[in-house]
Amino acid sequence: MDITSIASHVARGDRRALARAITLVESAREDHRAQAEALLAQLVPVAAAREVLRLGLTGAPGVGKSSFIEALGLHLVPQGLSVAVLAIDPSSQLGGGAVLGDKTRMERLGRAKNAFIRPSPSGAQAGGVARRSVEVLTLCEAAGFDVILLETVGTGQSETAAANMVDVFALLVAPAGGDELQGVKRGVMEHADLILVTKADGDLHAQALATRGDYANALRLLPPRAGDPPGYPRALAISARENAGIAEAWEAISTLAQWRRNHGITPARRESQARAAFRAEVESILLARLGRDRALAARLAAFEEDVALGRLSAAAAARQALHDILPGGDR
Amino acid sequence: MDITSIASHVARGDRRALARAITLVESAREDHRAQAEALLAQLVPVAAAREVLRLGLTGAPGVGKSSFIEALGLHLVPQGLSVAVLAIDPSSQLGGGAVLGDKTRMERLGRAKNAFIRPSPSGAQAGGVARRSVEVLTLCEAAGFDVILLETVGTGQSETAAANMVDVFALLVAPAGGDELQGVKRGVMEHADLILVTKADGDLHAQALATRGDYANALRLLPPRAGDPPGYPRALAISARENAGIAEAWEAISTLAQWRRNHGITPARRESQARAAFRAEVESILLARLGRDRALAARLAAFEEDVALGRLSAAAAARQALHDILPGGDR
Repeated sequence: MDITSIASHVARGDRRALARAITLVESAREDHRAQAEALLAQLVPVAAAREVLRLGLTGAPGVGKSSFIEALGLHLVPQGLSVAVLAIDPSSQLGGGAVLGDKTRMERLGRAKNAFIRPSPSGAQAGGVARRSVEVLTLCEAAGFDVILLETVGTGQSETAAANMVDVFALLVAPAGGDELQGVKRGVMEHADLILVTKADGDLHAQALATRGDYANALRLLPPRAGDPPGYPRALAISARENAGIAEAWEAISTLAQWRRNHGITPARRESQARAAFRAEVESILLARLGRDRALAARLAAFEEDVALGRLSAAAAARQALHDILPGGDR
Repeated sequence: MDITSIASHVARGDRRALARAITLVESAREDHRAQAEALLAQLVPVAAAREVLRLGLTGAPGVGKSSFIEALGLHLVPQGLSVAVLAIDPSSQLGGGAVLGDKTRMERLGRAKNAFIRPSPSGAQAGGVARRSVEVLTLCEAAGFDVILLETVGTGQSETAAANMVDVFALLVAPAGGDELQGVKRGVMEHADLILVTKADGDLHAQALATRGDYANALRLLPPRAGDPPGYPRALAISARENAGIAEAWEAISTLAQWRRNHGITPARRESQARAAFRAEVESILLARLGRDRALAARLAAFEEDVALGRLSAAAAARQALHDILPGGDR
């Protein structure tokens, strides 16, 4: 199948073509990259014309992300909404990550006709993860999904990357004793539109409700954000096992998404996200090119040694190393 | 005074020459930058030959950083140790920061003969803050201070920047009720060698001790770090007002610093910090040069519009925009 044919199949919602397109986009091979870009050139405008809700989900390992995604997906599919589940997996950088690792948990959603689950790429390269994720997201949008769930493990930069790709961002936390430190990064809290306290069932039910209250209080302490209707960010307690709070969570998510669309916030946000992605891409290409210029790499390495040995300041060394290499003169 | 003369005065510990050198390093003027680099070229090797303890301090506004710094400084100066106090102030980026803002609190330390207090530069440029801080730190090292306290407000990137410049890093937190979210970023916790619970006096005494216990428990939950002796990271309660726990805090800091020096950890850490600073500097110069090339800037802006309007993917646009501009071929 040539690129134009894959593109038109993807645009008609063909799952096999979509899977193939994703594999192409995730490939590290140079010839695949050229094909991937030709494909994206055709599908970016298709994706831009769709109205899709991009929902980001983060939370520590074991908090119940997969269970929630499955419960939410199974709530949406019967309503006629098609759902794609993607992941940003930082495990290649940090080791031990397990985004969508336990796919058996999503077995029921995986069998649903209107659902598409794509585990994270194995062997994804550090730094390139976010870039490829944006492209995979674009492919799924072009394929016509109504809701795209982007899952990430709460380990650091990946949440910020995820938050910068989605319309609504939810943080999942486990019930916690009142005297425990939650270990939630404030940066993540500040991105969250919803905090979902999981496992609100059985022995943990009361604890989950108390934790929800703690987060609701904490959210009130954060400064108000532009682009939030009253009542947001919001904390809810859910149980995937008992299917409790799932409809309420979706109601909170879709209401917020609709409000943001109606107020022109989502288009503006997507535009600024696209601009930021472009700038990051420019930086990344520049740095990659520098790395490939052997004479320059050797020169940079030599100056780095001077800095490491305390012979030169970092600023002076960098300026001297880059002298007469790039347009723009001395500094 | 010419540069060589300023350099030799700084190296002999002359405070007026040091203040002048810092002003030069912090200046945004091009001619000053050239002089600053000439100065640093002479003083970097001097600084590298000294044995100085670089102590980083962070914490939210109002937690009592200035009070602790003054108490610690007044504990050190009578022991014959000279102390410099510097700040990384992100307020120019975020507004409302107040690093070393209330200098009246350090009035007593400011009058001490062996102490040097340098408030953060006003009008520091975003991004350049960390770079200048490293250089100011180098100047103070060259001037022969025994201990350099680097203060930063806990607002985000600045702590990571600070943690990457120091030998020992302390996080100051206020006493908190057991059911409050602490709002401490995990990334900061992971950098902290010591957590100092402030205001352990009067009505807050019991609460400070309880909070210290909470943090001690939380620290035990973090994975062990390479380069820590047994018992670190450690949580202590202090009172600047009653001068309680200050000697113990210094004991914990200096013991850790000595242990890290004895085990070769500090030199290795400084070397990798210097390498990272050099790489950051290289990136920053490259990006600045791009911004100054008008034809390229126009080209980048045009491609960014295509991305913002959903006509091109970020990756394809960046590659096309940079095509034939830099050495290194097509990608």
